[in-house]
Amino acid sequence: MLDEERRHLIEEKCGVFGIVGHNEAAHMTYLGLHALQHRGQESAGIVTWSAEGMCVQRRTGLVSEGFTEEVLETLPGPVAIGHVRYSTTGGTGIKNAQPLTFFTKFGRLALAHNGNLTNAVRLRKELESEGSIFGTATDTEVIAHLVARSQCENIVDALVDALRKVTGAYSLLALTEEHLIACRDPNGVRPLVLGRVGESSAIASEPVSFGLMGGVLEREIEPGEMLILKNSDGGRVWRKPFDVVSPTPCIFELVYFARPDNTIFGRDVYETRKEMGRTLAREAPAKADLVIPVPDSGVPAALGYAQESGLPFEMGLVRSHYIGRTFIEPSNSIRHFGVKLKLSPVRSLIEGKRIVVVDDSIVRGTTCRKIIKMLREAGAAEIHFRVSSPPTTHPCFYGIDTPERSQLIAFTHTVEETRRYITADTLAYLSREGLFRSASATIGQMCDACFTGEYPISLESESRST
Amino acid sequence: MLDEERRHLIEEKCGVFGIVGHNEAAHMTYLGLHALQHRGQESAGIVTWSAEGMCVQRRTGLVSEGFTEEVLETLPGPVAIGHVRYSTTGGTGIKNAQPLTFFTKFGRLALAHNGNLTNAVRLRKELESEGSIFGTATDTEVIAHLVARSQCENIVDALVDALRKVTGAYSLLALTEEHLIACRDPNGVRPLVLGRVGESSAIASEPVSFGLMGGVLEREIEPGEMLILKNSDGGRVWRKPFDVVSPTPCIFELVYFARPDNTIFGRDVYETRKEMGRTLAREAPAKADLVIPVPDSGVPAALGYAQESGLPFEMGLVRSHYIGRTFIEPSNSIRHFGVKLKLSPVRSLIEGKRIVVVDDSIVRGTTCRKIIKMLREAGAAEIHFRVSSPPTTHPCFYGIDTPERSQLIAFTHTVEETRRYITADTLAYLSREGLFRSASATIGQMCDACFTGEYPISLESESRST
Amino acid sequence: MLDEERRHLIEEKCGVFGIVGHNEAAHMTYLGLHALQHRGQESAGIVTWSAEGMCVQRRTGLVSEGFTEEVLETLPGPVAIGHVRYSTTGGTGIKNAQPLTFFTKFGRLALAHNGNLTNAVRLRKELESEGSIFGTATDTEVIAHLVARSQCENIVDALVDALRKVTGAYSLLALTEEHLIACRDPNGVRPLVLGRVGESSAIASEPVSFGLMGGVLEREIEPGEMLILKNSDGGRVWRKPFDVVSPTPCIFELVYFARPDNTIFGRDVYETRKEMGRTLAREAPAKADLVIPVPDSGVPAALGYAQESGLPFEMGLVRSHYIGRTFIEPSNSIRHFGVKLKLSPVRSLIEGKRIVVVDDSIVRGTTCRKIIKMLREAGAAEIHFRVSSPPTTHPCFYGIDTPERSQLIAFTHTVEETRRYITADTLAYLSREGLFRSASATIGQMCDACFTGEYPISLESESRST
Amino acid sequence: MLDEERRHLIEEKCGVFGIVGHNEAAHMTYLGLHALQHRGQESAGIVTWSAEGMCVQRRTGLVSEGFTEEVLETLPGPVAIGHVRYSTTGGTGIKNAQPLTFFTKFGRLALAHNGNLTNAVRLRKELESEGSIFGTATDTEVIAHLVARSQCENIVDALVDALRKVTGAYSLLALTEEHLIACRDPNGVRPLVLGRVGESSAIASEPVSFGLMGGVLEREIEPGEMLILKNSDGGRVWRKPFDVVSPTPCIFELVYFARPDNTIFGRDVYETRKEMGRTLAREAPAKADLVIPVPDSGVPAALGYAQESGLPFEMGLVRSHYIGRTFIEPSNSIRHFGVKLKLSPVRSLIEGKRIVVVDDSIVRGTTCRKIIKMLREAGAAEIHFRVSSPPTTHPCFYGIDTPERSQLIAFTHTVEETRRYITADTLAYLSREGLFRSASATIGQMCDACFTGEYPISLESESRST
Repeated sequence: MLDEERRHLIEEKCGVFGIVGHNEAAHMTYLGLHALQHRGQESAGIVTWSAEGMCVQRRTGLVSEGFTEEVLETLPGPVAIGHVRYSTTGGTGIKNAQPLTFFTKFGRLALAHNGNLTNAVRLRKELESEGSIFGTATDTEVIAHLVARSQCENIVDALVDALRKVTGAYSLLALTEEHLIACRDPNGVRPLVLGRVGESSAIASEPVSFGLMGGVLEREIEPGEMLILKNSDGGRVWRKPFDVVSPTPCIFELVYFARPDNTIFGRDVYETRKEMGRTLAREAPAKADLVIPVPDSGVPAALGYAQESGLPFEMGLVRSHYIGRTFIEPSNSIRHFGVKLKLSPVRSLIEGKRIVVVDDSIVRGTTCRKIIKMLREAGAAEIHFRVSSPPTTHPCFYGIDTPERSQLIAFTHTVEETRRYITADTLAYLSREGLFRSASATIGQMCDACFTGEYPISLESESRST
Repeated sequence: MLDEERRHLIEEKCGVFGIVGHNEAAHMTYLGLHALQHRGQESAGIVTWSAEGMCVQRRTGLVSEGFTEEVLETLPGPVAIGHVRYSTTGGTGIKNAQPLTFFTKFGRLALAHNGNLTNAVRLRKELESEGSIFGTATDTEVIAHLVARSQCENIVDALVDALRKVTGAYSLLALTEEHLIACRDPNGVRPLVLGRVGESSAIASEPVSFGLMGGVLEREIEPGEMLILKNSDGGRVWRKPFDVVSPTPCIFELVYFARPDNTIFGRDVYETRKEMGRTLAREAPAKADLVIPVPDSGVPAALGYAQESGLPFEMGLVRSHYIGRTFIEPSNSIRHFGVKLKLSPVRSLIEGKRIVVVDDSIVRGTTCRKIIKMLREAGAAEIHFRVSSPPTTHPCFYGIDTPERSQLIAFTHTVEETRRYITADTLAYLSREGLFRSASATIGQMCDACFTGEYPISLESESRST
Repeated sequence: MLDEERRHLIEEKCGVFGIVGHNEAAHMTYLGLHALQHRGQESAGIVTWSAEGMCVQRRTGLVSEGFTEEVLETLPGPVAIGHVRYSTTGGTGIKNAQPLTFFTKFGRLALAHNGNLTNAVRLRKELESEGSIFGTATDTEVIAHLVARSQCENIVDALVDALRKVTGAYSLLALTEEHLIACRDPNGVRPLVLGRVGESSAIASEPVSFGLMGGVLEREIEPGEMLILKNSDGGRVWRKPFDVVSPTPCIFELVYFARPDNTIFGRDVYETRKEMGRTLAREAPAKADLVIPVPDSGVPAALGYAQESGLPFEMGLVRSHYIGRTFIEPSNSIRHFGVKLKLSPVRSLIEGKRIVVVDDSIVRGTTCRKIIKMLREAGAAEIHFRVSSPPTTHPCFYGIDTPERSQLIAFTHTVEETRRYITADTLAYLSREGLFRSASATIGQMCDACFTGEYPISLESESRST
Repeated sequence: MLDEERRHLIEEKCGVFGIVGHNEAAHMTYLGLHALQHRGQESAGIVTWSAEGMCVQRRTGLVSEGFTEEVLETLPGPVAIGHVRYSTTGGTGIKNAQPLTFFTKFGRLALAHNGNLTNAVRLRKELESEGSIFGTATDTEVIAHLVARSQCENIVDALVDALRKVTGAYSLLALTEEHLIACRDPNGVRPLVLGRVGESSAIASEPVSFGLMGGVLEREIEPGEMLILKNSDGGRVWRKPFDVVSPTPCIFELVYFARPDNTIFGRDVYETRKEMGRTLAREAPAKADLVIPVPDSGVPAALGYAQESGLPFEMGLVRSHYIGRTFIEPSNSIRHFGVKLKLSPVRSLIEGKRIVVVDDSIVRGTTCRKIIKMLREAGAAEIHFRVSSPPTTHPCFYGIDTPERSQLIAFTHTVEETRRYITADTLAYLSREGLFRSASATIGQMCDACFTGEYPISLESESRST
């Protein structure tokens, strides 16, 4: 799927990074977040702890835009956590930007959260009725309140206490005066990994985060695990404080979200996507002249499809690198460039050809329709649209920002109706079985609720996600 | 005193404005805050309540810089409160910018606060120990927590309940879904007035705030009074919910802070300052050729001094209008322009003359010393420095940001030592009696703690002010 | 007159500064231009010459806004010239910003020009017909072309050659690889002075320019004089290359433009303005209770009027210091704040009083009318408007940007009609004789064409001024 | 080659666009330039002609950054020309930004120039000696001077006259009050095409420029052709005013510069690049496991190489989309991320494999070396570097900004030395014959001076290119 279009459709909402015991902790966090920029482009934040106490900076926009040398200089200290997110629009953006920071009876606390709690609305109402005030609309703040109200004697136990009360998906980093704590929910929906950067321990949403700084992946934080890093000496304590459940990591991370140059949930992302493409080629072959991807996310699956089918692979859609934030459309004559600003067809390849177009998913179908229209204008004889995942029929309540169900074309339309809407000659999706097989998993071992509605964690309330 | 220098010395920390029942409530608040800009230039905020709920915008810098038409358009609704403040430096500025907004069991609450609580530190510790978390370092947030924890049935009673627990100085505006509530502490330290703008009720720190929008002053909110305005129809309910004490409005508002084109605490500010100058002329005459003010705040007192003494008044120091936020000093040759960038002497007036220089106060003495140096370089024969208030010996804990006591020259130096430090030929301050007489008050009727250390409201803790 | 309003009415178009032999030449020019900011706020430029050749930076806005440390670092070298100007609006502003720089057969040349040529249009047409191309709409570029086409052997002689061909008003700085050349037209319409900054020679439009950097005025560059400073050693050569005419410096510099803390054309500006006020008081007394100035330019004349008349002087109009570049007006209710944003009346002074209001000039009358309306709303019983110069009936063609004649109220209205338009009870202007007497000059010794239409330099074409 | 790295090595310096007879001419030019952004990212400019005359806007940065709706609104009129360029650094950037505009005896003239003149230095000296002044350092200005000095009766003939005097490469757009004139040098080094947008005629550097606005390619402007479009009615006049020479379009446009989704010099760019890859595979096969491109420019050749060799094609290097303008490197620990910020290897593909890496060219070899280092760190067993053009041994003097000869690794090193420097196991370039055959041309029919030093247009002086 065209990444920019996606931003307004399905959006991974967060990436987190933390590091302990590094003399340039804020700089490393800057690098770590930069590598996670695909998980959220709207705001970024870094919190450090130095001798002078907690230092906080949050900015709208990309990490490399908001965090100048001048800003990083205000973030001293050897320990840091950071967060990138897709925030809501407008002036309140900064307010909900993470890491969130709080003053509690245990001292100051910063939280960076990737995921979404499913009982946050109920907990929030209970907390408010007991006299708590909320400063943000985030479910992350619920965790802070539960910590603050815990009867435990120290903040680490209080955090355990708090997390036992919440349900949902979270890969969480907490920074206190003495510890950096990383924790992944028992279902392990979102990724979280431990790495080593020189002598320092680092935590990140994806291992690719360690690459820029010359670090290496040590191991995943496993579902239900908590790692407590001591700020003073980097000492590690591992805990498994929760009831054990059968983990259900998010299969959509493998389909689309995670970076392809990466390993996640123990799987190589690029290879998994290629395998989805290969399986798709077997399940839904097409009589065609060539295979083209919707760049960039569709590339590995299209390569797999091409290799399996024996059809030539071509970059039939060229992606522009010069799209700014805003683009002016002429007022009278030409409207709605839509996808044309970002993609452009290679006419010589397309003209008169039967084309297989491979994308990773279809959300609302509108971008898809525009791409096909553009290819037809470039002279395509036939268009066989292939999707390397099943129809997206249900929203995610575990930390991905999907449109309402009524806007999901796979919910409102049959496959045949969708085909007609997007004006493809044929349309096929990867089967659920094919998806899991490609991911080397059996059904039930990963969360595929967006394709099935089978939500592995109870949905007490369908609150707005974090 | 030179206003820009003052910004880093004594700084009124806030101005507030609110309006109910106006179809351009945010625009009116923008105008109202603009007129209060002298009370805080570092950040500004406006909160409105429309059919869609609460809307919030906070910006660093001047009202006219941060609030563009585009920003104001995001603030619909017929009711609004706003705030200007001197915030702390750096990126956290916006975080502490007001109005602060909270989610409570009573619904959303916005607070705009001018003043400083004197038992905030103790209350905050108690609240934290009971499990509250604080998102800011402000004492204003204490009020929100007390509201949220109140057992009262509605938010107005809960606010009364909360304010009964706090001590200190506050002129407070609260905005809830149903009401805009204005309240002034029983001592009435900071000003707060009610005005009428067409059919709408408006509240402001100073009556000058109503002028731009064609409104008129209706009356002061009296010390200890609470005015509850109904958002739906503008209906007013007056309450006096606190124990009655003898009011002690801040005399320094008359000396320096309030705008001269204004009436405050029932006194005309310009005339009061002139009277201070006249009294000073009687108390501390000087054999001189002319009287010059330190612009702009010293002008009325200097005029009073000149008229009483019969000496000619001249604008011997010209103020530059083109000072930007930053100014580069050459690295090698000339350093520390200091006051030269802002003030420039009219040599033809000064040369060979005996000059009376009138300023409203001396804080650290450094600016004063530079001004005198500049006048001497311009050829002044004698300099008789006259201050239209007593020596500033104590910090304010009621909402004005003064330096630590050790930095107040009047605390560390005698008058004679101060005279020598600033290199004046003579130095005289207005007496305490003269000050009160000029303000048509008797000693004890107004707070003059900054001159005497006699704090009328108990100082449980000398917390950082709001 | 209210300075901000003036910006759109009469506007001095330029200030120039240059320095030779200073190791921080660009920094000094920055300071020198800052002190001349009242002569032009729309753009600023600095050109230096170092071992690497000519360096140029031009910026829109104030000197202190556009020239950061980073920008100044790109301007190395011991010799510099700079310019501030009132440029036309829009994106082309920078294009016409000065100093202008050219490549010629003599090498690179930079020109900073204050004034206006009166035969520029004809010369330009001639040059174009001979194959010259112009890159700007300025008359300054005409001088560069004449230099480039001169048959003289060196650039200094070529500049003399060029200036002999132009008529009009100019105070000009030229920078070449070897020399900084300062020249004032034979009539000496605009000011130009030589100063000494340590061991360095500096040139500026007004002596106040030397103050910030600790320099001193050495003497005026006299009408028709050219000073050639050698870049390498600061060596000075004086020339008088033009036919001698009777000088006619601009009297309006004394009335309004020049800074009051300054000496210009051998006269003290503050004292001259006071004397205009005194003369006005004698010529046009008023039965009134007090005298107030229109700040800030009206202050000295108002003080003179008050002292001569014996009426008390008061600052009845308070000027706001927080006006940003743009200000939003509410769309429905209150429009056209006009002057209210910048000035505010001190009601307690005004109410019930007969007021003499003193301003330096009236251009279109609209601001005047608004001020009087505001004073009447504040309760003034009578308003006697006094202007410390004669009626402005003619445009300037010598470097001041005046509106077209049809917009000058003194051209379209009689004094009585003007009085009625501005709604004053009485209106009086200083007489031409009174003006010259106050300026210690006899009629004809200074240019007062804006009051009389008697243009001392022939107007070949009324071209747009520089 | 990695595009960002290239920006500092070889850089196409310009793209041009023009349109006549469109009611949104400036908007169309904005779109047309956006599609040419790959030809210059440092500055952009648009000039229109309306009833009010010429309107000019130039901005640094991308078209979509600098040209807001607000800016476009200042560019009325039905005719426009625009330019994107790689400008020199610093504040003078805007000065040399095009289109350049001039006042001449024929009226105003705007020029947008892609290419480089080879006798500009001599012409410039001659013009200066005759009294012309230059405002810029561009060779484009030489053309304007020659126009202005022409004895022809109208500006179109004068332009012909001027162009007959210059030698070098140019694809030029000129805008006058009456005409938009497009002209391509007799050798036709740079591309220039005519399109149709609705009823309007448009000119662009590449046909892809017409796509966004729904226009179509009509035909190339042939080498030595001039097209004169009448602003009033779009009427076309074709001229061939120059002596006929054998055309030599730039083969490097096909190798790297032109967009792949495009036709240039009558060749399909994508297919030509694939053919270069196929030929390279035959000329320089490798025993390897897979073929990967250096994205994005190496993709088509890599696909051709893979298809011809039968080796699998993989996207083994992932390109980041979130690189901002500046990126902070940690000061102590990790320096010189270099290519790591932009490219990241897919370890699972690379590890233990023999890799063919295909790029379009090698300039200095440094980026190449970093990429190979990165691939080795990712575990590559062998690296066979293949370049789809011959060694770059000579600089371009026809409008491409290449480093000095001494910095071209193919000039200073043999192929074997280069292989050792970049640490490849094998290194091979496409042969000259293979290159021309792939481009369906015979040697001599296109300029390949950068590979051979055989410059088809005389190099009178090796002046800095435009």
